[in-house]
Amino acid sequence: MKNPPSLDQLISALKVLPGVGPKSAQRMAYHLLQRDKAGAEKLARALDRALTQLTHCERCNTFSETTLCNVCADDKRRQDTLMVVEMPADLANIEQSQCYDGLYFVLMGRVSPMEGIGTNDIALAKLMARALDGTVEEVIVATNFTAEGEATAHVIGELLKDKGVKLTRIARGLPVGGELEYVDLGTLAQAVYERRGLTR
Amino acid sequence: MKNPPSLDQLISALKVLPGVGPKSAQRMAYHLLQRDKAGAEKLARALDRALTQLTHCERCNTFSETTLCNVCADDKRRQDTLMVVEMPADLANIEQSQCYDGLYFVLMGRVSPMEGIGTNDIALAKLMARALDGTVEEVIVATNFTAEGEATAHVIGELLKDKGVKLTRIARGLPVGGELEYVDLGTLAQAVYERRGLTR
Ligand SMILES: [Zn+2]
Ligand SMILES: [Zn+2]
Repeated sequence: MKNPPSLDQLISALKVLPGVGPKSAQRMAYHLLQRDKAGAEKLARALDRALTQLTHCERCNTFSETTLCNVCADDKRRQDTLMVVEMPADLANIEQSQCYDGLYFVLMGRVSPMEGIGTNDIALAKLMARALDGTVEEVIVATNFTAEGEATAHVIGELLKDKGVKLTRIARGLPVGGELEYVDLGTLAQAVYERRGLTR
Repeated sequence: MKNPPSLDQLISALKVLPGVGPKSAQRMAYHLLQRDKAGAEKLARALDRALTQLTHCERCNTFSETTLCNVCADDKRRQDTLMVVEMPADLANIEQSQCYDGLYFVLMGRVSPMEGIGTNDIALAKLMARALDGTVEEVIVATNFTAEGEATAHVIGELLKDKGVKLTRIARGLPVGGELEYVDLGTLAQAVYERRGLTR
């Protein structure tokens, strides 16, 4: 007794999704075919549409359906600061915090030797060209404070130092509302090392 | 800053998959678009093919691309015993254990008041017609030994009792709470050999 080929192919295709192994791929296939054919159809169409219509913003490298994304096309934003983030979700969260009105560059990943993602696998060359196009005065490195994000920040620092742009890193410290008693020790130590003047 | 519509639609479409919430849908979309466009294309095509080509076997109700599935079309199998299972994966596991050479009926689910799946939501009417078509002498109920599987077995017992077919239940050689799909083949075979009368 073998599965029909189209069922096996669907189960196998679902395993391209990160975190989905053989058993959950099978469960997903049964669910779609038995209980949600409309959902399966919707997913197939959404994949097709994203594959044909999504590209990368020419300037900031984020996902976009147009040559320039909304942010890059907005000439009311500060043109002389460039914040470098790992992923579009990071950009979205900073936008939501309304703390920044400059432009962005989205690496679409980070250096990760563990996962075999090297400096050529993320958009560092495109970042260099953008940061040094003559309009940028400050590059704010806003990669995550994980081992991979820190390594990526270090690589960017090496690439852009002494190139005539100011290079900064977002601050590390206690979260707003954070209490010394409960914060992890690494964060606490960094907050002490990176202390700043209290007034002015 | 909003995502491009085709990206939002893909993230939303991925949430039709069981166990996939907003965060993992976003992670999946980024992965497919950034690292595995070929996989995304493969998944879209597999969904389309499964949706257009897969149907249910006219006799046993399992997924099939043909009117009769391989098992039902095999006239060397015993025609007078019918084993009722919940899902195609259960059928596949019994076939692999090589303990049974009769035919099957696949309910494609089980009664589950908790999930709102009632007796009309699984193929009980089709099972009745099949079990009473004059060729079946014994119906072996091989639903899981979970609360839902036991409830389903009970419903089948009520529907088929005193209808002139012998009604049996695979033995509780499986651990309580065990599922056919995951049990080892020896235990599974033993449970089939030791099947007992379902009613009384
Ligand atoms: Zn852009
Ligand atoms: Zn069949």
